[in-house]
Amino acid sequence: MPGSSLRVAMIGYQFMGRAHANAWRQVGPFFEPEPLPVLQVVCGRNEGEVARAARRLGFAEHATDYREVVARDDIDIVDVCTPGDSHRDVVLAAARAGKAILCEKPLANDVAQAAEMREAVEKAGVVHMICHNYRRAPAVQLAKRWIDEGRIGRIHHYRGTYLQDWIVDPEFPRVWRLQKDRAGSGALGDIASHSLDLARFLVGEIVEVSGLLETFVKERPLPEGGGRGPVDVDDAALALLRFESGAIGSVEGSRFAPGRKNHNRFEINGSRGSLVFDLERMNELQVYEEQGPDSGFRTVLATDESHPYVGAWWPPGHILGYEHTFTHTVRDFVAAVSSGTPATPDFGEGLRNQRLLDAIERSHASRRWESV
Amino acid sequence: MPGSSLRVAMIGYQFMGRAHANAWRQVGPFFEPEPLPVLQVVCGRNEGEVARAARRLGFAEHATDYREVVARDDIDIVDVCTPGDSHRDVVLAAARAGKAILCEKPLANDVAQAAEMREAVEKAGVVHMICHNYRRAPAVQLAKRWIDEGRIGRIHHYRGTYLQDWIVDPEFPRVWRLQKDRAGSGALGDIASHSLDLARFLVGEIVEVSGLLETFVKERPLPEGGGRGPVDVDDAALALLRFESGAIGSVEGSRFAPGRKNHNRFEINGSRGSLVFDLERMNELQVYEEQGPDSGFRTVLATDESHPYVGAWWPPGHILGYEHTFTHTVRDFVAAVSSGTPATPDFGEGLRNQRLLDAIERSHASRRWESV
Amino acid sequence: MPGSSLRVAMIGYQFMGRAHANAWRQVGPFFEPEPLPVLQVVCGRNEGEVARAARRLGFAEHATDYREVVARDDIDIVDVCTPGDSHRDVVLAAARAGKAILCEKPLANDVAQAAEMREAVEKAGVVHMICHNYRRAPAVQLAKRWIDEGRIGRIHHYRGTYLQDWIVDPEFPRVWRLQKDRAGSGALGDIASHSLDLARFLVGEIVEVSGLLETFVKERPLPEGGGRGPVDVDDAALALLRFESGAIGSVEGSRFAPGRKNHNRFEINGSRGSLVFDLERMNELQVYEEQGPDSGFRTVLATDESHPYVGAWWPPGHILGYEHTFTHTVRDFVAAVSSGTPATPDFGEGLRNQRLLDAIERSHASRRWESV
Amino acid sequence: MPGSSLRVAMIGYQFMGRAHANAWRQVGPFFEPEPLPVLQVVCGRNEGEVARAARRLGFAEHATDYREVVARDDIDIVDVCTPGDSHRDVVLAAARAGKAILCEKPLANDVAQAAEMREAVEKAGVVHMICHNYRRAPAVQLAKRWIDEGRIGRIHHYRGTYLQDWIVDPEFPRVWRLQKDRAGSGALGDIASHSLDLARFLVGEIVEVSGLLETFVKERPLPEGGGRGPVDVDDAALALLRFESGAIGSVEGSRFAPGRKNHNRFEINGSRGSLVFDLERMNELQVYEEQGPDSGFRTVLATDESHPYVGAWWPPGHILGYEHTFTHTVRDFVAAVSSGTPATPDFGEGLRNQRLLDAIERSHASRRWESV
Repeated sequence: MPGSSLRVAMIGYQFMGRAHANAWRQVGPFFEPEPLPVLQVVCGRNEGEVARAARRLGFAEHATDYREVVARDDIDIVDVCTPGDSHRDVVLAAARAGKAILCEKPLANDVAQAAEMREAVEKAGVVHMICHNYRRAPAVQLAKRWIDEGRIGRIHHYRGTYLQDWIVDPEFPRVWRLQKDRAGSGALGDIASHSLDLARFLVGEIVEVSGLLETFVKERPLPEGGGRGPVDVDDAALALLRFESGAIGSVEGSRFAPGRKNHNRFEINGSRGSLVFDLERMNELQVYEEQGPDSGFRTVLATDESHPYVGAWWPPGHILGYEHTFTHTVRDFVAAVSSGTPATPDFGEGLRNQRLLDAIERSHASRRWESV
Repeated sequence: MPGSSLRVAMIGYQFMGRAHANAWRQVGPFFEPEPLPVLQVVCGRNEGEVARAARRLGFAEHATDYREVVARDDIDIVDVCTPGDSHRDVVLAAARAGKAILCEKPLANDVAQAAEMREAVEKAGVVHMICHNYRRAPAVQLAKRWIDEGRIGRIHHYRGTYLQDWIVDPEFPRVWRLQKDRAGSGALGDIASHSLDLARFLVGEIVEVSGLLETFVKERPLPEGGGRGPVDVDDAALALLRFESGAIGSVEGSRFAPGRKNHNRFEINGSRGSLVFDLERMNELQVYEEQGPDSGFRTVLATDESHPYVGAWWPPGHILGYEHTFTHTVRDFVAAVSSGTPATPDFGEGLRNQRLLDAIERSHASRRWESV
Repeated sequence: MPGSSLRVAMIGYQFMGRAHANAWRQVGPFFEPEPLPVLQVVCGRNEGEVARAARRLGFAEHATDYREVVARDDIDIVDVCTPGDSHRDVVLAAARAGKAILCEKPLANDVAQAAEMREAVEKAGVVHMICHNYRRAPAVQLAKRWIDEGRIGRIHHYRGTYLQDWIVDPEFPRVWRLQKDRAGSGALGDIASHSLDLARFLVGEIVEVSGLLETFVKERPLPEGGGRGPVDVDDAALALLRFESGAIGSVEGSRFAPGRKNHNRFEINGSRGSLVFDLERMNELQVYEEQGPDSGFRTVLATDESHPYVGAWWPPGHILGYEHTFTHTVRDFVAAVSSGTPATPDFGEGLRNQRLLDAIERSHASRRWESV
Repeated sequence: MPGSSLRVAMIGYQFMGRAHANAWRQVGPFFEPEPLPVLQVVCGRNEGEVARAARRLGFAEHATDYREVVARDDIDIVDVCTPGDSHRDVVLAAARAGKAILCEKPLANDVAQAAEMREAVEKAGVVHMICHNYRRAPAVQLAKRWIDEGRIGRIHHYRGTYLQDWIVDPEFPRVWRLQKDRAGSGALGDIASHSLDLARFLVGEIVEVSGLLETFVKERPLPEGGGRGPVDVDDAALALLRFESGAIGSVEGSRFAPGRKNHNRFEINGSRGSLVFDLERMNELQVYEEQGPDSGFRTVLATDESHPYVGAWWPPGHILGYEHTFTHTVRDFVAAVSSGTPATPDFGEGLRNQRLLDAIERSHASRRWESV
């Protein structure tokens, strides 16, 4: 479908925008996709800021109205990097314009929006993908390979925790991520959602949950000064899980775990082995398989050329960083767009993730198990 | 109260009996209690077996009828090491005879029995203690010290997992631990109970739970041959927890985690720091306290003479083993008996632990949160 | 000194060329140097290959004669990424042309060449730097900061090991790195040299050495087929060290350590603390400082914005990869070129490193301690 | 040869005496040797102290003259736990009396004494053993098993470090271990000797060494007060090693490594795999064997009943402590005495260890490689 290049319009340029822009720049030198993506235009509301971002991030142009941008004929891909409360509007516009769409997670701030977005891209027939970048850490892909090859057997347990510590200080201000109308939820949608997506990716669909949400610090200083404001999202979210397959599990996201900076960890126990991953050591996968009395967990440094994505980078033992997960995501998205084949995880998966978050919130309210 | 020695009658001589006997032998040379415990008599149903156990374990005598043993005038202490279904009868007899009682966990196989036992010892006015030996690993005591000194601040999270893998093979036979009438429950009472006891010891009382029990392998070969029999206990037990203090948590016990041999782990996050313990590295406590940008989890090797119980053993860096936790337990029990002061954890705590197990089972059945 | 941009000519485009090119591309978006480096021309002997490398790596042009390239008026910087046996000729030509020079390590294949190169750049008055990229891992810089701030006190011990395993199979072919005339030496110059450079960077000058070289597999299959050829470089190199400061140490490089992929590790013990680094977990620094009986090694995840170079990248807990060390090197080199100030480590340090390698070889031959 | 029991006379009752006494007490209940050792008499110079030790450690009698004790008809075994400067006299007397002898390491304080002692026991025809207890940690035995079974192939590298930190404070007093006439040497004989013994046990005989000794703090406060005295032993000892087999290696002992309490670590690299052990986690052996791209170091928890000595203790996952290494030593010594077969390591091995220490000291003095 596209010509000799794929022109990208990126909406938003903060943390996620920087990570995505890097991926768009790096995919060429390391993966040599055909056609090559071109960083055409970055879009944001503040003219001065977005102009500076364009220079810094390597975009040819900048713009301030996403409606105009997504409608441009020379744009092939729209990459949505804004906060969750604006995803719907951008995506609907981009879908109407027939663009391939990469959207940051969470797909939306509620199930209804997510469903609407998914319907729009399906109807428009465009390639769509939600950016759950951690799926594409080589060690996570390696975990998936072990599971698919049956090396750990039938899965019994999934145990996911995503722990951070950046708001444990009660004087940390009430930033937008602590406001329900902006962020949708707290630790639940921001980080537990990653654990849940990995659970679905690796173990399969979750059918029911028992959830627990807690807000430890109920008021915080307003960032703009002038007193304190209520925190109406969760500081921590926990859930027990039942999978369609018969596996059981648990998931937890918390921003109140001192010393845990980006502790996105999972442990999976199957009938024949176990797998453990921790994002803070994201180049490693701990694997256990039965090998008699001298068995033990072993640390696979997932930097061998045979490991997913690694061959494009450096020799064995030369580790990758956080941002490489986005480059791998963009690589696969570009391949899908180029070939016109579906990308994964698509908006349908984004919607199922959203339903999971919703079920956990419902369960917290009802104090009983809820179906997803 | 006692004379120049404390004569011990131990009921049962299997795994727990061996561990307790070792503690009774070792407490003298290392802790020099006054008076010294004397390994007087070991009691079991099989005459030949118990005679051999007496020789091996260092008891002066053996016997086959616990009723006679606990009634002997020369016995000061009754140590109950049998499976849970006989705890009640032995304890009631020992209490009637006015003996100090150390009882293996779980206190009983249900709440009613546990309550009856507790009432009996209280009425008899004897010293009573339940053996939750892991409380007395030096690193666990060190965790307690940090918490009591406020070094990790107000506790927000407790995360306990006790994982093993010894029945993951579906052809592993249906031993007594997999029968409800003998063992009371499966992973719940056997190992999750340790995580729950540590939760209560370190964080405080738990007020409500949402529980999940699962039996992955529902039939197993009978150990005596002749076909298969049903497994009517849980292979895995999970629960979400709410503590009286406002902390939240989770606990899990599973015998289906390949590679985890004795993975009794907890992580506690407070407002100022975190603590992590793993029984497989039981001489270590991971601690985190805020120390600016160069903070990090540090591994305290809990073998300094200033660490609880350690001064009686070896110089720094010379690690202790599993059985030392029993020696420390016996040391403190003997001190309580000698001084006539209460021991801890006592049968009241054993009863509260039992109520917790019961609440988790009720919650599993009702599919909603239940009060303890 | 330069105008609005710094035009870079890179000589060589294999592994090191790819790593350097990435650094030249990435330094702009993340560090925003003024002026910006421009990837002008890449040079190599094979026209087709170098043309393809230019496209892939993002250079505007390609060329096949380094003499012409380094003499071009529009070139400001020459980046030497070829094997060690050609460093001298390229550097001398670039120095004559007055270009700023970044040269891969080792500076040369022997001391005489290294001395000549250093004299040439000093005489030409150009900015010169040897690329010891591991100095600029944030965790290594953090180690340097701790040492400079006196946090580990007076240094007593340096213990450096750089272990790999890629030639342990005796059927691995005799590639150029196993030929003395191409590579100069084996594990000594290739990897032990990194441990030695880190020793000098962190602990100071080394004054004498006792060296041991060993070639375990003395003949290997020729890569072009047709029989076997001799290996005339070391498979492993060890040395005891005496530092000017009174510290003592050891260093080892080996390509015969199964399971060690890129195990560039050091441990430094001072009078007040210790530091441990391992390249396979390059985002972590293990630090020990005396904090009473609850002291312990702690793992600092060197991803805080206060840590060297990190502020330009991602939030805390988002780790960096191998190639970032080159980006940091290029950033500092560009800053030196822009301001006309000396870069570090310069060719003088490269020469001292070369003398160290030479002393180890001499000591191996003489079987006694040798002065550097 | 002996009757229904083996009566033990232990000479010395400090740290090593406590560890040995524990082993004599514990070997019965756990290993059930036939005949059983009996703790008959403990001997020391201070009557009051040794009387108290006898009570505490469980010996039937105490005595103050080792000459009388070793000559007693009812004594079968003499266990020498005194400092090294008295080993010779006790051993010669015990050999003359025809007793089986277990002697703490180092065998003596110099080669001549060690040779004399070895000759004496050989001439007397008694069973003799030197107590290098770390050989009998189950994980070390497991390493030996892997090597003997060829699982790591031909050994290329041995890397031993034994690090402690107890004298890094320059105000730590000049205790007897820092005096040459009492201790023979410093870190060399005390701890590096363990690394050397493990090297010989696991890799084979060492034929030449290049040694380096250093005393960082040359004067210390006298423990008895009244000023400072010279330290005439080494604070740290390093050596490069060449083995008879063609393997090469290094060994280091230091008491100046802050944070290292009892860091007796070795790494062995063979042609097919690697092994790593650290005494601070003495229940674990890190093993690496080639298993394709998903290879990695795995942590074997050496607590399986199939692991050496473990079957006598607890179920898998229940770790052992420091003192168990002595119990295993005593177990094997008793078996040798009972069957009249040679024990290992015997005094011949003690002598070879002594020659190694001597060669390192000679090499330090000559500043060149020395043969052992």
